Amino acid sequence: MKRTLIQETLQKVGEKVSLSGSVHTVRSHGKIAFFDLYDRTGFLQVGGFGKELAGQIASLNPQDVVTIEGLVKKRDEKYINPEMETGTIEVELESVSVIAKADTMPFDMGGRELPVELPTLLDYRSLTLKHPKVKQIFNVQASLAEEFRNAAKELGCTEIFVPTIAAGATEGGSEVFPIEYYDHKAFLTQSPQLYKQIMVGVLERVFTIAKAYRAEPSVTTRHLAEATQMDIEIGFITEFEELLDALEFVGTSMIKNVSEKHADVLENYGVEKPLVPNKVPRLTLREAQRIVQERTGRDLSKEMDLNPEDEKEICLWAKEEKKSDFVTITHFPTKKRAFYTMPDPKDPEYSLSYDLLFRGLEILSGSQRINEYDELVEAMEKKDVDPKNFGMYLMAFQYGMPPEGGFSFGLERLTMKLLNLGNVREASLFPRDMERVDERLSKKENTSKKEEK
Amino acid sequence: MKRTLIQETLQKVGEKVSLSGSVHTVRSHGKIAFFDLYDRTGFLQVGGFGKELAGQIASLNPQDVVTIEGLVKKRDEKYINPEMETGTIEVELESVSVIAKADTMPFDMGGRELPVELPTLLDYRSLTLKHPKVKQIFNVQASLAEEFRNAAKELGCTEIFVPTIAAGATEGGSEVFPIEYYDHKAFLTQSPQLYKQIMVGVLERVFTIAKAYRAEPSVTTRHLAEATQMDIEIGFITEFEELLDALEFVGTSMIKNVSEKHADVLENYGVEKPLVPNKVPRLTLREAQRIVQERTGRDLSKEMDLNPEDEKEICLWAKEEKKSDFVTITHFPTKKRAFYTMPDPKDPEYSLSYDLLFRGLEILSGSQRINEYDELVEAMEKKDVDPKNFGMYLMAFQYGMPPEGGFSFGLERLTMKLLNLGNVREASLFPRDMERVDERLSKKENTSKKEEK
Repeated sequence: MKRTLIQETLQKVGEKVSLSGSVHTVRSHGKIAFFDLYDRTGFLQVGGFGKELAGQIASLNPQDVVTIEGLVKKRDEKYINPEMETGTIEVELESVSVIAKADTMPFDMGGRELPVELPTLLDYRSLTLKHPKVKQIFNVQASLAEEFRNAAKELGCTEIFVPTIAAGATEGGSEVFPIEYYDHKAFLTQSPQLYKQIMVGVLERVFTIAKAYRAEPSVTTRHLAEATQMDIEIGFITEFEELLDALEFVGTSMIKNVSEKHADVLENYGVEKPLVPNKVPRLTLREAQRIVQERTGRDLSKEMDLNPEDEKEICLWAKEEKKSDFVTITHFPTKKRAFYTMPDPKDPEYSLSYDLLFRGLEILSGSQRINEYDELVEAMEKKDVDPKNFGMYLMAFQYGMPPEGGFSFGLERLTMKLLNLGNVREASLFPRDMERVDERLSKKENTSKKEEK
Repeated sequence: MKRTLIQETLQKVGEKVSLSGSVHTVRSHGKIAFFDLYDRTGFLQVGGFGKELAGQIASLNPQDVVTIEGLVKKRDEKYINPEMETGTIEVELESVSVIAKADTMPFDMGGRELPVELPTLLDYRSLTLKHPKVKQIFNVQASLAEEFRNAAKELGCTEIFVPTIAAGATEGGSEVFPIEYYDHKAFLTQSPQLYKQIMVGVLERVFTIAKAYRAEPSVTTRHLAEATQMDIEIGFITEFEELLDALEFVGTSMIKNVSEKHADVLENYGVEKPLVPNKVPRLTLREAQRIVQERTGRDLSKEMDLNPEDEKEICLWAKEEKKSDFVTITHFPTKKRAFYTMPDPKDPEYSLSYDLLFRGLEILSGSQRINEYDELVEAMEKKDVDPKNFGMYLMAFQYGMPPEGGFSFGLERLTMKLLNLGNVREASLFPRDMERVDERLSKKENTSKKEEK
């Protein structure tokens, strides 16, 4: 019998169906038993009546993979479950066969919340990802990527695939992962930055979803050793503001569309619908600092950047004063930004750079870039970046680069922020950090030491 | 004045426009001079009349980035260029300003073909990518990725983002790149295989476009050290043939849609429109070998696989006998495939595996997978793969995995084959291999050695 998806059963009342999926929860009452079945389209209650069928249900474990046959029936008014999409129906079981048996659960997977802390969430990642509320995070993440691509195409960008293995450290930083590359030393790129810039010389407007690797020497709630970065780079800009228009368009349309599509998930996570203004408020760093200073009394006049407290405060201001969950901050100090950042011609101590903040956190960063070869080499040397390691990059500027700029979003960080998660690791399927590559590295070391004895 | 894109000029005859782009070729005839301008939407002829304007044109270098103003005019009948999309019009120059000057070209970038061999093509990659015929490769590549995603979504797959840093070598092979991961050793994944399988237990049907790293110890025309892989994995299959239906749907719809969208590029590359049948011919390896044997007289009865010659021959057969540029080969010997491949229950020496061949080359590979925990551990041990290194992977099977399978395409290899390129490096923006990470590694070594002296 052909498989019916759970969502399709709503249209099949009175019909006999075959369903395949996994067992979520089992409720046994002697000669009557129920279980909730789930597949990729939703959840459905299955009831077994009589000793034999009820007994078969009682013997099911959560996460057992089953195929069942049964009759789709309307529920009595009093049994309707408004919390379930299929809460008006249930399936009366006729037969059940277990396709793959699951081991006993190490913790309860049947509740609304998963009753485990972060280390356990990650130790059992292949299991915990199946929890409905955990799984939703990654449906939202898939939509964020899709809406990013839609927005990028709307801007006329072509998708590119750039390398993650590089001969030199990407942005001159020291926090890179070395690779044994045949008989040579190579590095994992810290971002697709340099390659997307090269490609502006070729395709004018480009986007990519790429990996970014940072050997962060500490464990924080915001950083991953391997992150997914969504990048856009745009050539032939005539003024700085064009970049701000582009990034605000991409940032707000992504968040708006995903929030509408997954309104149920936001509700499940207790998150309010984002306030998306027609015009995102724009402030220079110095303006933002003055506002924070006025609101809090903290003296920020000597600070080169916004710290996390300041980011929260300026977002509060944007929400209260501008009815916006977004605020764009521009003109960060030139010395605090990467070598390719264009200094503001009117005041070169500050740069044509920007961050987009959303509900207290930076979700996007970028800048207009230096597009003159000589100026770029000079900027590299000022920051102790050796131009010799960037031959292919510099070649792009040698052969004609239009005025250009771009920006990038961290996909996991954006997911975390949209769902108000406590830790970016919750927004990564298999997060990598100092302490963990699936299993805890310390544990692994201990095990192998034991074996050596 | 607001920028007009070149494609839009066709609708602006008689109007004054401002255009921005790069210089392709310059033709100077004293008091009259012409140049071809290009932007991301196409090419356009610009004419300058009078000593001053013609002189300004004559001083332009190929690849100079310029902004011009001028009048859009219909060309006289006899000057119409049918090879150019904008060949019915030209712009009469009024002013030109150089935004970024390009160095003198090291070779001619203005011809239909780029007159360089592969090493030069790659040595000057940031420049050679700008050649119109080279650039087209990557427009086609972007469309292949897009059509892959469209087909995957049509199958009900959710996009996932999986890690490329792993604690163990992915498929038990030895050709992996080690990473210095903090104080530990880690590896670059050879494919997203194990993670997409885990995710079938969570989301049922998934797809990903991910990097695959192989430390190939030799240089061939088909292999890259860093490749882009397009992967699909599907759970709850009820029979092997469902997987074949899925892969043939994805493979043929990608190639068909991209060939139609980029018919001009295929023509430019001298490639015929692909023959896409309603039903892709399916053969077991043994059937395919018998056909090749009949056609060529070569005895293949002891061969465990098809070699490149055989692949060409069986594709020739499919074309001649079945009017198809595609052929699916199934049931490769179990011992030749990775540990997770399901042996055919009817004859376990052969496996439920498949390749999709297109015009003489394998463009896709995959299989139904072992989905029982005990069977999987046994299969690992048979292939000398240590289950201890695959804890997170095995956990997915411990907690219930439906019958499942999947497949993957190499994006660069597919691009190469569709455009009939001679080397897969031509289909990678910045190819990585034993000898090169942008610059040639040997050269780099020599340079640094020189410096040490």
